[in-house]
Amino acid sequence: MVEYIKDFKWEKGMSTKEFVKQLGSIGYQSIELRKSAEAMAKMKREGAKIFLTFTSNMVTSGLRGFFAQIIEKGLAQVCVTTVGGIEEDIMKADGEKFMVGSFHSDDFENHENGLNRVGNVLVDNQSYMKLEDKLLPILKKLYAKKKNWTPSELFKEIGLMLNDESSILYQAAKKNIPIFCPAITDGAFGFHLYLFQQDHPDFMIDVVGDFKNIVLSTDHNEKKGVICLGGSISKHHAILATLLNGGAEYAVYMTTAKSSSGSLSGATTQEAKSWGKIKDDTDAVTVHGDVSILFPLAMTLTLEILDEEGLLE
Amino acid sequence: MVEYIKDFKWEKGMSTKEFVKQLGSIGYQSIELRKSAEAMAKMKREGAKIFLTFTSNMVTSGLRGFFAQIIEKGLAQVCVTTVGGIEEDIMKADGEKFMVGSFHSDDFENHENGLNRVGNVLVDNQSYMKLEDKLLPILKKLYAKKKNWTPSELFKEIGLMLNDESSILYQAAKKNIPIFCPAITDGAFGFHLYLFQQDHPDFMIDVVGDFKNIVLSTDHNEKKGVICLGGSISKHHAILATLLNGGAEYAVYMTTAKSSSGSLSGATTQEAKSWGKIKDDTDAVTVHGDVSILFPLAMTLTLEILDEEGLLE
Amino acid sequence: MVEYIKDFKWEKGMSTKEFVKQLGSIGYQSIELRKSAEAMAKMKREGAKIFLTFTSNMVTSGLRGFFAQIIEKGLAQVCVTTVGGIEEDIMKADGEKFMVGSFHSDDFENHENGLNRVGNVLVDNQSYMKLEDKLLPILKKLYAKKKNWTPSELFKEIGLMLNDESSILYQAAKKNIPIFCPAITDGAFGFHLYLFQQDHPDFMIDVVGDFKNIVLSTDHNEKKGVICLGGSISKHHAILATLLNGGAEYAVYMTTAKSSSGSLSGATTQEAKSWGKIKDDTDAVTVHGDVSILFPLAMTLTLEILDEEGLLE
Amino acid sequence: MVEYIKDFKWEKGMSTKEFVKQLGSIGYQSIELRKSAEAMAKMKREGAKIFLTFTSNMVTSGLRGFFAQIIEKGLAQVCVTTVGGIEEDIMKADGEKFMVGSFHSDDFENHENGLNRVGNVLVDNQSYMKLEDKLLPILKKLYAKKKNWTPSELFKEIGLMLNDESSILYQAAKKNIPIFCPAITDGAFGFHLYLFQQDHPDFMIDVVGDFKNIVLSTDHNEKKGVICLGGSISKHHAILATLLNGGAEYAVYMTTAKSSSGSLSGATTQEAKSWGKIKDDTDAVTVHGDVSILFPLAMTLTLEILDEEGLLE
Repeated sequence: MVEYIKDFKWEKGMSTKEFVKQLGSIGYQSIELRKSAEAMAKMKREGAKIFLTFTSNMVTSGLRGFFAQIIEKGLAQVCVTTVGGIEEDIMKADGEKFMVGSFHSDDFENHENGLNRVGNVLVDNQSYMKLEDKLLPILKKLYAKKKNWTPSELFKEIGLMLNDESSILYQAAKKNIPIFCPAITDGAFGFHLYLFQQDHPDFMIDVVGDFKNIVLSTDHNEKKGVICLGGSISKHHAILATLLNGGAEYAVYMTTAKSSSGSLSGATTQEAKSWGKIKDDTDAVTVHGDVSILFPLAMTLTLEILDEEGLLE
Repeated sequence: MVEYIKDFKWEKGMSTKEFVKQLGSIGYQSIELRKSAEAMAKMKREGAKIFLTFTSNMVTSGLRGFFAQIIEKGLAQVCVTTVGGIEEDIMKADGEKFMVGSFHSDDFENHENGLNRVGNVLVDNQSYMKLEDKLLPILKKLYAKKKNWTPSELFKEIGLMLNDESSILYQAAKKNIPIFCPAITDGAFGFHLYLFQQDHPDFMIDVVGDFKNIVLSTDHNEKKGVICLGGSISKHHAILATLLNGGAEYAVYMTTAKSSSGSLSGATTQEAKSWGKIKDDTDAVTVHGDVSILFPLAMTLTLEILDEEGLLE
Repeated sequence: MVEYIKDFKWEKGMSTKEFVKQLGSIGYQSIELRKSAEAMAKMKREGAKIFLTFTSNMVTSGLRGFFAQIIEKGLAQVCVTTVGGIEEDIMKADGEKFMVGSFHSDDFENHENGLNRVGNVLVDNQSYMKLEDKLLPILKKLYAKKKNWTPSELFKEIGLMLNDESSILYQAAKKNIPIFCPAITDGAFGFHLYLFQQDHPDFMIDVVGDFKNIVLSTDHNEKKGVICLGGSISKHHAILATLLNGGAEYAVYMTTAKSSSGSLSGATTQEAKSWGKIKDDTDAVTVHGDVSILFPLAMTLTLEILDEEGLLE
Repeated sequence: MVEYIKDFKWEKGMSTKEFVKQLGSIGYQSIELRKSAEAMAKMKREGAKIFLTFTSNMVTSGLRGFFAQIIEKGLAQVCVTTVGGIEEDIMKADGEKFMVGSFHSDDFENHENGLNRVGNVLVDNQSYMKLEDKLLPILKKLYAKKKNWTPSELFKEIGLMLNDESSILYQAAKKNIPIFCPAITDGAFGFHLYLFQQDHPDFMIDVVGDFKNIVLSTDHNEKKGVICLGGSISKHHAILATLLNGGAEYAVYMTTAKSSSGSLSGATTQEAKSWGKIKDDTDAVTVHGDVSILFPLAMTLTLEILDEEGLLE
C-alpha cells in the first residue's frame, strides 16, 4: 500500500500524539521517528523482553525521570547504562539539582565557580562530594551482608534504599528490573569503590557474574527488543546479550553518531538485519538526532498507543 | 535567575505546546529547541521583518504546506529558497503526490521504476514531465507582458495563477511576500527557462534586479530576524541581505551541518553575534538536528504563544 | 580477489603517495580515500570530461592554489562553484592574504577588529573593500564590449586580466575551462553588480544563457566524471548538467554532510548508481570528512599516478 | 605573530612529513591536524606521561599495528581501550586476517556467509571461534598462578605469550605499559571469562583493583598528556584518571562525534581547558574526522619530528 507525503498543518491545541502521527507523513527523520514509536509499541504488544540502553549524559538531563516512568510502566525489562548515570540518579534522588546552562559558557569561569559543564547542563561539584557521604554507609551495610557483589545486585540494593518515584534505580528495584553497567568503575562511583576496597581488601565487584546475569536474562525462545539511546558500551552490551540468545526481533536506535567510522555507536539497524531474526523492515528503525528531543517525542506516541490498548503496567 | 533541569514525565493527552515547554528543562538540544520557539515568537512580537529560508528537500517533504501556513499567519515577510522547492510547490499545487519510501531502497530498482529518491521520499519522474506542460503556457503568458523578469516577480505571477491554500507560492503571492531564489536555473525550472529562451532570445531573467529587491526589502532602522532552516545559499543570501542592512537582531538556525568545515551551512548563531546587533543570548539560537522534526515542533509552540497574544494574522 | 586489512607502519621519510596507498588497507574512510584517488585517476585515463565542484569556503582556504594547479594539469574540464570563491580568488590574485585563526576566537572582538571569521580562517574586511576598487573598472571595460554577459563569460574575461599562476580564474581562462556559478549575486560580487546596474540599467547578467552553456558543455556520448567537494548548489548543478546528458560514469564525493536529512549535499554516490551509467562500484566513491585534508591527500596520489603514466598536462 | 593561509601545491614525490606541514596553512581541520601533530610531539619532548585511548573498531582496522609501533617507540605510557580491541589483537597475533569490504554490502548475505561487517571491514566468524581455543589454555595457566586478576595484569600475561611485533598486547607487555579496559566483559572475551568462571567459581576479575592501578599510574607532579582517538569509555576513563591527578597539561582528541548532545565522546578540548592545567591553546587540539585517516597522518609528522630530535625509543 502506497503512503503519501502529506502537508503538515498546525492546529490549535494539537496533542503530542496527533503531532507525532503527522510526522509520519512529512519526510526524512520525521518518518523514522513515527516508525520508531510504532516499533516500540509493537515490542510491548508482542510480549518481547525489552532491553533499554542509555548513556550517562541522558541521566544528567531530565530524561532521567522519564526512564524511571518507562520502567514503571513496564516498557523496559532490562537496562544497560554507564556508571555516570547511576551516580547522578542517586544524587538526584538525594535532592541534588542540576542547572540549565549554555554550550558557550566560559569553561575557565565554570571551573572557578566549581561547576562541571555537560553540554548545556551544569553540575555543581558539591553534588559529587555529597555522593561520597551517601555511598560510604551504603557500601558498609552491603559489605556486612557479603563480600562479593555484581554491579546489578549492588544497584538493586541501592535502589531499595532510595525513596524517589523519579529514580531509575528505585523503580527498577521495585519492579525487579536488572540494571547492568559493564564499566562500573568508570566514574566517581569507581573511585569510591576503590577507596572502600583499600579498607576492605576482600570486597570484590564481580563483573563476570553480571555478564552471566545478562546472558541468562533472556533465552533463544523469548522475543527480544532493543531500544538503544546513544551509543557507547551500553548499546554494545545489550546487542551482545541478545545476540548470544539468537538475536532480537525488534530494534530501535536513536543516535547522532555516523556509521562511516565503523563504530558500533554509529551502526544503524540496517546492520541489525544481519542477525537473521528481524522479519519486517518496520521492526528495525534508526532515527538520527538528539535523544533529548527524539525519545520523549516518539515514546509519547508509544505510551498513548499502549495506554489505549490497556497494555501499560 | 537559575533554571533547573527537571525530570520529564509523560502525561496522557499532553498537548504539543506543553510538550515543547517541558523540553526546555530536559537538556542539550531540547533546551535549544524551546529557546528557538521563544525567539521566533519574539521576532513577531517585536515587529521584526522575518526572513525565512529553507531548502528544496524541505518542500519535497510535507513541510511545504506548513511553510504556506506560516506565510499566511504572518510569520515570514521575506522567503529565500532554492529552485527545486519552487518546482515542487507548483507540482503539488497541480495535484502531484510524492510517496513515503525508504532510505535503503534499491536505487537501481527505483531507476527502473521511474522513481527519483530524495532520502526516504520518492518522486515519480512523471511529475517533472508534467511540470513542463504546466510551465510553458505560463512563461508564454508572462513573456507577452514583458521580456525581462526577476525571479521574485516570476514567482509572484505564478503564485497568483495557482489555487491551492497549501502552496507556498500561492500564499506568498496573496500576501505580497517576495520569494527570492538566487540560483533560479539550478533545477528543472532552469531547463525550461533555457528551452523558452531558445525560442525567445530576448527573454531575460534578471538576477541582479532581484539582488536589488532583497537588499531594499528592509533597511537599517527596521528590526530584522532570520529563521534559517538548513544551509545552502538560501541561508547565505538572507544573512547577506540583512548584513547589508546592518545585521539582524534575532536569528534562529536549524541544521545538521557542522561548523568544523568552515561552511556557512554549518555556521552557528555564535558567529551571528559578531554582527553587532544581537543584544541578548536568547535572541540567537542554533538547534542541531533534522528540520523535519525540529521545525514543526518548535514552530507549534511559537504559533500557540502568538495565537494567545492575538498576534497571528 | 580478496583484499586484506594490513597493519599500517610508519617508515621514515615515507612519501605521501606511499602513505595514501597504505591507507587503502587500514579500514573505514581511509579505504574510501584511496579508492577516490584511483577513481579520479581513472576519470582522466579514460578521457572523461571532469566536472569539479567546490564551495566558497574552500577558496577561502589554501585549496585555492591547488584547484588552480589541478585545472592547469588538466584534471578539470568544467568547474562549478559559489560566488564567494570567485571573489576571494580575485582578492588573492590582487595580493590579499587571509590569516590562520581559531574556531574559538571571540566573535565580538573579531567584529571590533574588522575581521570576518570563516571557521579558523580570518579575512580582513578591508579585502572586501578593495574588491570594489578592483571590480568597478573591470565591469566598465566589459560593459563597453557588450551589455549582456553570462557569468562564465564574465569570469573568463576577469581571469584573463589576472596575472597569478595560483588563481583559479587565471588558469581556467588560460585553458578555456568554463567556471559556472549559478548564484552569481549571492555575495559581495552581487552587490557590485547591483551597484553597476543602477548606473547602467541595460547591463544584464544572463544566467539562463549559462544554463545552456553547461548543458551543452558535454553530450550523451562523452564519458563524464564528477568530483564534488562539499555540497551546495555547486554539487547539485554539476550533477544536473551531467544527468541531462545521460549521467556520469564516474563520481567522487567528499563531504561532511549526512544523507539522513534528504539534502543533496549529503547524498552519497550510492544514489549516483541510480543514474544507470556507473558500471563498477569502484567508479563511485564517497569519502566522509573535511575536504581540507581529504582532497589534497587523495589528489596527491591521483597526480602521482597520472604523472607516471604521462597523463598530466 | 600572524600566520597566513598559503596555497597548497602538489610537488612530485612530496613526503608525508612535508604534506602535513603544508596542511597547517590550508584551513579548517587541516590546520587542527598539523597542530595535533605538534602537540603530540610536545608531550613527548616535555616528558609527559602519555595516555593513549582508542576503540575496538580501530583495532579491527590496520591501525592496530600502528598502535603497537607507537607503544614500541615510547609514545604511550598508558593505554585504555575496549575489550573488542583486545580480542582482535590476539586473533591477529594468531594469524587471523580481516578483509576489506564495503559499507554497502548486503548484510543478509554477509550473515549467510558467516561474515561480520564492521563498517567496510569484514571479519570471519571463525576468527571468534578460534579465539576460544586460544583463550581457554591461557586462562587455565593464569588461574593456576592465582585466582584474582585485574584486567591489566591479565593482558600483560597474555601479551608475554604472544609473539608478534605488530601486537599491541605484545609491545605493551614488553615495555611494561599497562592496558586498561574498564569494561572487560563487553565482548567475546567476557563470554569466555563467564564460561571459565562457571567451572572455576573462585576465579575473579578485579576491576576495582585496576581502577586503583590507573589512578596510581601517575601523580599530581608528573606532566600528563591524553591522546583520545574516538570517544567511548576509553576516552572517559583516561580523562577521569588524569583529572584525579590534577588534570592533563596536553590533550589531543580526534573524533567524528559532535558536542551538541552533551556526550563525552563528542566533547572537545575546549572543555579540557576548564581542568586548569592547560596553559597554551596549542596544547589542546581537537580534530574532527575519521581516525583511520587523521591519526596516521598526524602521527607521521610527530614521529618524524621526534626522530630528528632523537626522542624516539
